[in-house]
Amino acid sequence: MKPLLITVIIGVTFGSPILQAQAEKDSSTATSNVRGAQSPRIYADGRIIFTLKAPDAKSVQVAGGDGLGKGPFPMTKSADGVWSVTTPPAVPGFHYYWFVLDGVSVNDPGSETYFGYNKETSGIEVPEDGVNFYHVKDVPHGEVRTKWYFSRTTGDWRRAFVYTPPGYDKASTTRYPVLILQHGMGENETGWTKQGRANFILDNLIAEGRAKPMIVVTDCGYATKAGMSAVAAGPGAPARNFQQAFSAFGDVVINDLIPLIDASYSTIPDKQHRAMAGLSMGGMQTLFITLHHLDKFAYIGSFSGPIVARINAGKQPAGAAQPPQFDTKTAYEGAFADPSAFNKQVKLLWLGAGTEEKQFHDGIKGAADALKASGVDVVFFESPGTAHEWQTWRRDLHDFAPRLFR
Amino acid sequence: MKPLLITVIIGVTFGSPILQAQAEKDSSTATSNVRGAQSPRIYADGRIIFTLKAPDAKSVQVAGGDGLGKGPFPMTKSADGVWSVTTPPAVPGFHYYWFVLDGVSVNDPGSETYFGYNKETSGIEVPEDGVNFYHVKDVPHGEVRTKWYFSRTTGDWRRAFVYTPPGYDKASTTRYPVLILQHGMGENETGWTKQGRANFILDNLIAEGRAKPMIVVTDCGYATKAGMSAVAAGPGAPARNFQQAFSAFGDVVINDLIPLIDASYSTIPDKQHRAMAGLSMGGMQTLFITLHHLDKFAYIGSFSGPIVARINAGKQPAGAAQPPQFDTKTAYEGAFADPSAFNKQVKLLWLGAGTEEKQFHDGIKGAADALKASGVDVVFFESPGTAHEWQTWRRDLHDFAPRLFR
Repeated sequence: MKPLLITVIIGVTFGSPILQAQAEKDSSTATSNVRGAQSPRIYADGRIIFTLKAPDAKSVQVAGGDGLGKGPFPMTKSADGVWSVTTPPAVPGFHYYWFVLDGVSVNDPGSETYFGYNKETSGIEVPEDGVNFYHVKDVPHGEVRTKWYFSRTTGDWRRAFVYTPPGYDKASTTRYPVLILQHGMGENETGWTKQGRANFILDNLIAEGRAKPMIVVTDCGYATKAGMSAVAAGPGAPARNFQQAFSAFGDVVINDLIPLIDASYSTIPDKQHRAMAGLSMGGMQTLFITLHHLDKFAYIGSFSGPIVARINAGKQPAGAAQPPQFDTKTAYEGAFADPSAFNKQVKLLWLGAGTEEKQFHDGIKGAADALKASGVDVVFFESPGTAHEWQTWRRDLHDFAPRLFR
Repeated sequence: MKPLLITVIIGVTFGSPILQAQAEKDSSTATSNVRGAQSPRIYADGRIIFTLKAPDAKSVQVAGGDGLGKGPFPMTKSADGVWSVTTPPAVPGFHYYWFVLDGVSVNDPGSETYFGYNKETSGIEVPEDGVNFYHVKDVPHGEVRTKWYFSRTTGDWRRAFVYTPPGYDKASTTRYPVLILQHGMGENETGWTKQGRANFILDNLIAEGRAKPMIVVTDCGYATKAGMSAVAAGPGAPARNFQQAFSAFGDVVINDLIPLIDASYSTIPDKQHRAMAGLSMGGMQTLFITLHHLDKFAYIGSFSGPIVARINAGKQPAGAAQPPQFDTKTAYEGAFADPSAFNKQVKLLWLGAGTEEKQFHDGIKGAADALKASGVDVVFFESPGTAHEWQTWRRDLHDFAPRLFR
């Protein structure tokens, strides 16, 4: 990349057809773009050029998730009404983003949409040099199946996605272990396939012989018990709201989902062949559900999931990343109180965080250290250079899945 | 509905909390909304109230597909910066829509997104009184599976969706017929599930015993042969572009997709158990592909698909709905020239159109009439009151599927 060109491109760009041609030569369309869309484009060093045609707009910015940079980045308008900006090099991986058009957050028509922030949101896939464990490769592929089911817990129809490993249909007598894998706050059951590419991660690990063939189930982590009103369980909400929402979802998992999966697929329907993991809120839910049902799960993973001292107590914000009084003796109703008994019951307790999500990382690492010191076997995994974002969670799954069902 | 209230609500609305409360009481959130979104809302008579918070915008309109009304509908701003409008009663069914925010078409954050117009687009589901053949019901449900495959035709990885009927997994010795079902221009392989709800239509028909259990495959109708450049095959494009694009997709279907499906699923891999249908461009593709491969298909359906006289001739716009010189003797390289032979080879030729899409309807009906007059057995189906929109195509599938594999 020539320094002169960089200088010109950052901030202004694409006013001239010559500059546009040069930028197109040096950059590639994002794989997250819709068919045929020429914007956004990514340079080899991770800088991204975003454009939007909006001749009548007063101001346009681009903003997004952690790894995109600090933002929002003001865009500038060319003579033909196209706004553009080149952002600093982004962290590799998937980032949500959006335009702020005269004050309103809107999607980029050039991007696929991904469910996040409780809505369909644009996203950009920034390649990581030499890393392809989540790419579609020339290996046998499993399937991701939509499974509609009626939940007695919620009194309505729900949709789960079920990954069946390569060869599942042909292997009529083989039975498989099950991983339940949950998304984060504001996301839904599509996240682990669309943003996370969990199916490709599993396909590749299985092809390499590094992970056992398994069934992976993703469901929507939001649930309201039949006849009750939905409660807000987001940042700042009282702990009792989390308790109520997590409890409803826990009932879905234990009373609806697990029986459904065991009845519908060739599973090994016991604790030794059942795992649960989740990211962020999904990690909190995983700990909440599995630690109260140790008869049902032998493998537990929490990816950037805050460890809370007493989610049932209602005395502290359950969303707090740093547990104010994490006590291995009392946390989760004493699930860890007898380390030796816990280690016999649980074959894997796996906690992870990115190094750049300090507010999550430090609390989770602190809890992992305290658990280790008390004698609880725990794996703590760090994703270098990534924050509260999907590249962290892809790496988490890539480390976690090979440890399952051994 | 009280007339006074209607008068007040149309156009202005929601400036007052009392009016807002009344509107919320009389209307329901659309089922196409994302989780928790309170807008858009639909009244019992099909009027829709759209809202968007945009305090700094100069102008906001809502616009959309045929059944939404003429539009665009100017929205008006309340004191709190929320723009709103109540549109006239919409045609029942699914309609794409978008906001025009200071001149830019943007999605509604309250809506799910649906791939149309070559991008992710908002959509609204307007209920039809007493009609539920495409609803999720308490019947056995099939699955929709993602099937990734490498296409030798295009030289890249492609994604198909495969509906397997209820009980498919348990019935290890049963083999099923296959319907290949294609989307329209600007859409993709997600359309028949998300907009069309084909899985629920089939689930319900099968539960009623009206359709034979079948496998339904939807693929992306866009394809470019390996090593070639993509050509534009949209409205106004020269016929040779359609020829090139349809030919590449035809090769995908014949050489990649059918062998893949027959190798991967419990199919009956012969002509008598294979159907193809599609909507609009997908209907054109269906006729183009099946009529050139009558050794492979015994059932053919074109839903609002223009019938062209000589797609290979390159002398007329292939996108023209009204065939200028449709001649049953020469059309499709003489596929219909010998009606008796055609009727022996093809068990069903099914053509449909909505009564409100005159530019498609008249050409299709004209072709159907000419074919009938010449002795070709053809079913012509009219969807009353609907235009070039998904409610037409849902009804088409609902009529078409029960006629298959008899």
